[in-house]
Amino acid sequence: MSAQGTCGTVYGVGLGPGDPELMSVRADRLLRAATHVAYFRKAGNAGRARTTVTGMLPADVTEIPMDYPVTIEIPLDDPAYAASLSGFYAQVAGCLRDLARGGADVVVLCEGDPFFYGSFMHLYTRLKDDVPVQVVPAITGMSAAWTATGIPITWGDDVLSVLTGTMPQADMVRHMTAADALVVMKVGRNLPRVRDALAQAGKLDRAWLVECASMDAQRVVPLAQAGDRTVPYFSIVMVHGQGRRP
Amino acid sequence: MSAQGTCGTVYGVGLGPGDPELMSVRADRLLRAATHVAYFRKAGNAGRARTTVTGMLPADVTEIPMDYPVTIEIPLDDPAYAASLSGFYAQVAGCLRDLARGGADVVVLCEGDPFFYGSFMHLYTRLKDDVPVQVVPAITGMSAAWTATGIPITWGDDVLSVLTGTMPQADMVRHMTAADALVVMKVGRNLPRVRDALAQAGKLDRAWLVECASMDAQRVVPLAQAGDRTVPYFSIVMVHGQGRRP
Repeated sequence: MSAQGTCGTVYGVGLGPGDPELMSVRADRLLRAATHVAYFRKAGNAGRARTTVTGMLPADVTEIPMDYPVTIEIPLDDPAYAASLSGFYAQVAGCLRDLARGGADVVVLCEGDPFFYGSFMHLYTRLKDDVPVQVVPAITGMSAAWTATGIPITWGDDVLSVLTGTMPQADMVRHMTAADALVVMKVGRNLPRVRDALAQAGKLDRAWLVECASMDAQRVVPLAQAGDRTVPYFSIVMVHGQGRRP
Repeated sequence: MSAQGTCGTVYGVGLGPGDPELMSVRADRLLRAATHVAYFRKAGNAGRARTTVTGMLPADVTEIPMDYPVTIEIPLDDPAYAASLSGFYAQVAGCLRDLARGGADVVVLCEGDPFFYGSFMHLYTRLKDDVPVQVVPAITGMSAAWTATGIPITWGDDVLSVLTGTMPQADMVRHMTAADALVVMKVGRNLPRVRDALAQAGKLDRAWLVECASMDAQRVVPLAQAGDRTVPYFSIVMVHGQGRRP
């Protein structure tokens, strides 16, 4: 805490799917008044979260980039991956904790919704018992994606299951078979596995691939026609529900 | 179309979970400039969507309330329920179609996200081939609910399944058993069935009940301690995932 005893707040601010007009009014207000903003990025990249808020931050804002030590260089199930990330999250959480204790409010830019597969959760668990933390929910990438397809995702009593392209394929097939509506997150280079799993589950013919939902580069195609291109990590695959509709 | 040949647009505008600050910047802009707003409500009630935008609409806006012919008077699986609703949706869609063809832009107020279990979907399917329709996604009630619990909903490769409290209980138990993280929508008077299903799935001890997420009346309690009170229809029950967290 500062000499005055005033502790700042860490705000985990969801930016939504990418279109700045789809940010919440609260996120917009916090960004335009920010004194300190922190954001994750891959070292050497501008960072998508930071790019999303271009033109919105005050000119004299203090920026705290948080550069991931690894992204896809180490497999997710390698203990070295968890160890490397754990040390990194502890270090950047310490930095934000010190800033808040010094009296600063820090806005952490979060792609999508912070508590839905978001990296901010790893800072949140390390900070919430030490300094005030507030989380601003946001429009998820999947909401922007199903809106982009022009087809509602769930009707009546449809069950929606959200999977990740990084999960074991046998589990993917099982969940794909059981659900009425499906969203697959974290597709990226897992696209061939996701497509194969959907074929096994008998749902490939109803699946869509959405890249860059709500952004200028938005692209929506039936998955069966998508070919074998490389798609962005945040691409989403979905199968719409077909439930009760009076 | 009007004599000038200018057809208006029907906007399905997601209002989000209830806190006006959690509306998108686009929704806020469309509402404050609206000439015509339409909204569903139970006859005789103000309507929650309309109440959410109190103070935001221009003074001279034309209001089109759309009063449901039935809500819970007829069971969901009674053919009379579908028939009554189908006629109602056709009638109000016709009204919005005429307004748009007359040149008016019509903003339809949608609680939550329009394409996620939303009533607007029934108008959308009846209008989209006749007049321009644009959908503005929104923060879902479930995002506000998990944010309110202060616990992230999904980590790593967690599978999230979204169920409805209105679905058959055996199906509920099966999906509750299979998923890592769970959201149950449309809880209301189904609360005892939902609780019983969670107990059968062995997850009652980790379940939360969230009423009125993001609103003044917000209430978050462990489900096992919620007792047998009547809760609002839009209450949400959730079980958080416990996946990979470095």
